[in-house]
Amino acid sequence: MTKINCDMGESFGIYNAGNDEQIMPLIDVANVACGFHASDPNHMRKTVELAKKNKVKVGAHPSFPDLQGFGRREMKMPKLDLKNMIMYQVGALKAFLDEYNMPLNHIKPHGSLYVMASKDEEIARAIADAVETFNVSIYGMANTVHEKIYKKERKLDFIAEFYADLDYDKDGKLVIAKGKNAKYSSKLAVKRCLRAIKEKKVKNTSGTDTDVGCDIICVHSDTPNAVEIIKSLKKALKK
Amino acid sequence: MTKINCDMGESFGIYNAGNDEQIMPLIDVANVACGFHASDPNHMRKTVELAKKNKVKVGAHPSFPDLQGFGRREMKMPKLDLKNMIMYQVGALKAFLDEYNMPLNHIKPHGSLYVMASKDEEIARAIADAVETFNVSIYGMANTVHEKIYKKERKLDFIAEFYADLDYDKDGKLVIAKGKNAKYSSKLAVKRCLRAIKEKKVKNTSGTDTDVGCDIICVHSDTPNAVEIIKSLKKALKK
Amino acid sequence: MTKINCDMGESFGIYNAGNDEQIMPLIDVANVACGFHASDPNHMRKTVELAKKNKVKVGAHPSFPDLQGFGRREMKMPKLDLKNMIMYQVGALKAFLDEYNMPLNHIKPHGSLYVMASKDEEIARAIADAVETFNVSIYGMANTVHEKIYKKERKLDFIAEFYADLDYDKDGKLVIAKGKNAKYSSKLAVKRCLRAIKEKKVKNTSGTDTDVGCDIICVHSDTPNAVEIIKSLKKALKK
Amino acid sequence: MTKINCDMGESFGIYNAGNDEQIMPLIDVANVACGFHASDPNHMRKTVELAKKNKVKVGAHPSFPDLQGFGRREMKMPKLDLKNMIMYQVGALKAFLDEYNMPLNHIKPHGSLYVMASKDEEIARAIADAVETFNVSIYGMANTVHEKIYKKERKLDFIAEFYADLDYDKDGKLVIAKGKNAKYSSKLAVKRCLRAIKEKKVKNTSGTDTDVGCDIICVHSDTPNAVEIIKSLKKALKK
Repeated sequence: MTKINCDMGESFGIYNAGNDEQIMPLIDVANVACGFHASDPNHMRKTVELAKKNKVKVGAHPSFPDLQGFGRREMKMPKLDLKNMIMYQVGALKAFLDEYNMPLNHIKPHGSLYVMASKDEEIARAIADAVETFNVSIYGMANTVHEKIYKKERKLDFIAEFYADLDYDKDGKLVIAKGKNAKYSSKLAVKRCLRAIKEKKVKNTSGTDTDVGCDIICVHSDTPNAVEIIKSLKKALKK
Repeated sequence: MTKINCDMGESFGIYNAGNDEQIMPLIDVANVACGFHASDPNHMRKTVELAKKNKVKVGAHPSFPDLQGFGRREMKMPKLDLKNMIMYQVGALKAFLDEYNMPLNHIKPHGSLYVMASKDEEIARAIADAVETFNVSIYGMANTVHEKIYKKERKLDFIAEFYADLDYDKDGKLVIAKGKNAKYSSKLAVKRCLRAIKEKKVKNTSGTDTDVGCDIICVHSDTPNAVEIIKSLKKALKK
Repeated sequence: MTKINCDMGESFGIYNAGNDEQIMPLIDVANVACGFHASDPNHMRKTVELAKKNKVKVGAHPSFPDLQGFGRREMKMPKLDLKNMIMYQVGALKAFLDEYNMPLNHIKPHGSLYVMASKDEEIARAIADAVETFNVSIYGMANTVHEKIYKKERKLDFIAEFYADLDYDKDGKLVIAKGKNAKYSSKLAVKRCLRAIKEKKVKNTSGTDTDVGCDIICVHSDTPNAVEIIKSLKKALKK
Repeated sequence: MTKINCDMGESFGIYNAGNDEQIMPLIDVANVACGFHASDPNHMRKTVELAKKNKVKVGAHPSFPDLQGFGRREMKMPKLDLKNMIMYQVGALKAFLDEYNMPLNHIKPHGSLYVMASKDEEIARAIADAVETFNVSIYGMANTVHEKIYKKERKLDFIAEFYADLDYDKDGKLVIAKGKNAKYSSKLAVKRCLRAIKEKKVKNTSGTDTDVGCDIICVHSDTPNAVEIIKSLKKALKK
């Protein structure tokens, strides 16, 4: 059965983001923020503990160092700096996973780092360099530059994500909405996911079809109807 | 033979601190900064690499989050926050140690965290909580609150440091100098160390004797005559 | 008529805090966060703009550099560092006030800085040093160390705050609640305020009376029933 | 007589950068770091004080928020965010200038922000938006995008800089050296400057001539022979 992953642990200090308590029991895999775009050591512990309690696998969700911009602002840095930046964050998360006797399941770059890696070979290679040192799977989107680098060039265990709650443009790129409106009703979101699984296609913003991969489905914890989408998806996937 | 440790990797971005290139070949153990009082992911890699090349053991040197104050400003935070803060930093360093196939040798709190732990039981316990999750030795000063907590209460592998280049006051507390003057000639520093090893005593700033521990000797990399002190010490210790 | 002030602009990046849109039209004076415990340049502009639109006076709400701890963690730093830290933040806010042709109304230290200044003369003096350079009023609590320093020693324009939504202990210190429960119904909060204005007294957590000052009333924007309290207060004050 | 400006106050916490004590007495104008790529409130005070003592005019040197990368890493952010980011820093500096009764002389963007503005109209406009609120001069390079925006489109008081110690490529762009080698002897640097003043030309890295502006000459405080270059320049300019 196709699994569901969710970006989790994106609170910071006194600030809350996402419905982690409600969503964690519903998902299979959590991408946990590492303090650079969101979270801090306290929220990292809480999130790992919550995942453990709910038997959810945990991957690292490293980002550019940009709390103010939530890791959504592009930054340019040398390749080795990028690798080191990712290793630092993943290592920090591993300290908490080790305490709870949980393995690191995968790495999924966050925000602009994810998007830039899907377009820029050198950035994808820097991420691959970091992933290799941890010997885990890497999440990304099929038919992009990062798939080519991760999977074909580096032979990493590449897991293609399909986004239940985001639009794709005609080039297969994600359209990140500014606000947090529920773009898709849970019914429509489920329909899109089922088609992605069966046909590996999604209708893009230009009205034509785009090829997608769907080894796993991603839902964002801050999508207003995330809980409803995930519940409906799980029902549909069981059939 | 008594070993020598040194705080290393305290550069940050374009800023340099300490004579790491010259000192690393001379010491046995490096306490490596983890990005909270000094260093960043790039300098952490360089420092671990330099330690590996020189067969120097590496421990983590975590701090309060205070780059501007170099971790020398006291902060108050809840016990679990302290534990989490330390785990985050040590985990980050471990990512680099893992890549170079080096074990984590020990943990030595930095600056105000070190000093506060030597006086405050709850802070010492928070640090002990973090150290237990990594199952390594902990550095500190004999005859202090943290020795009592680490060694007697928690049965951790406590390593007592003697500071070759800092004064002790009559209560056995370190006197952190503001500037970076060479307080002691290498000759005097060596004499103090040899006495600390043999008699476990040092002459304090009040002119009387203070009991000290000396499982290992610490020299600061930013002490102006650090290289000379370490070279002289090694000669003297070999005899 | 006694005026009402509120800590405003405490959102940060994507994170929201407080009901600024609803509260701003109801209050007389806003204490605006300056980026060290909350806010960032974007939220500072928005908050100043919102205050301007609602003809609300703006003061600076500087803090220790502690986004993760929301400025609620104590830090120790030299007196001149404290003064400089405050000047930096107040200056940053003034850039936005200048653009909107608004004067700086006052300075109110935030969180631990506020609490520490009410107990520690040197900290109160450091704050006074900064306030003098801006030549504005300073907010604080009557019958405390900071009143003594600000008002008697420095002859600053000291404005005594009464907290509508926080408890006082028998020594006149504020009791900062961990959670955000509505401690007082708006009816009770109003009753406490009216007594503070008339009798300069409040019932403390030990059940006895504590002397308070009440040149202005402070309500916290993140108190769940803040809007209701402020509305009821304004009605009661008009009578 | 053509004036000389220098980037100053680029130390941070315990870390020192530049020979401010030696250079300040020799220059006419200081571009003072504002805490985002270098400096902190303590160093800002020291630098303003040193400028005051030496009768040097002070401008703000704002940057992307990037202490680790010294503001040399490109970041993408919305236009209003850029304006706000600059206003925050310049306002912070003004607090110290106000205390010393010094006017803000100009704004000069730092590092990547400077370089990006010389190529990207939107970034140059964001900077112009901020500069307009302070009503001061703006520094930049002639024959670039930012000159066009600042001077022609916005009618700001644009001051064209000539770099005594950096190479220009054939498109008139600065070549930022990685290390800090003394590229030019003071003799050659002076020769280049005199030609820039008289002929508004410099020999570029391709061996041909590039048109430059030279309303003011800039020397970097971390160029190893900066003191010598400035002293020779001043002698030559007096003739």
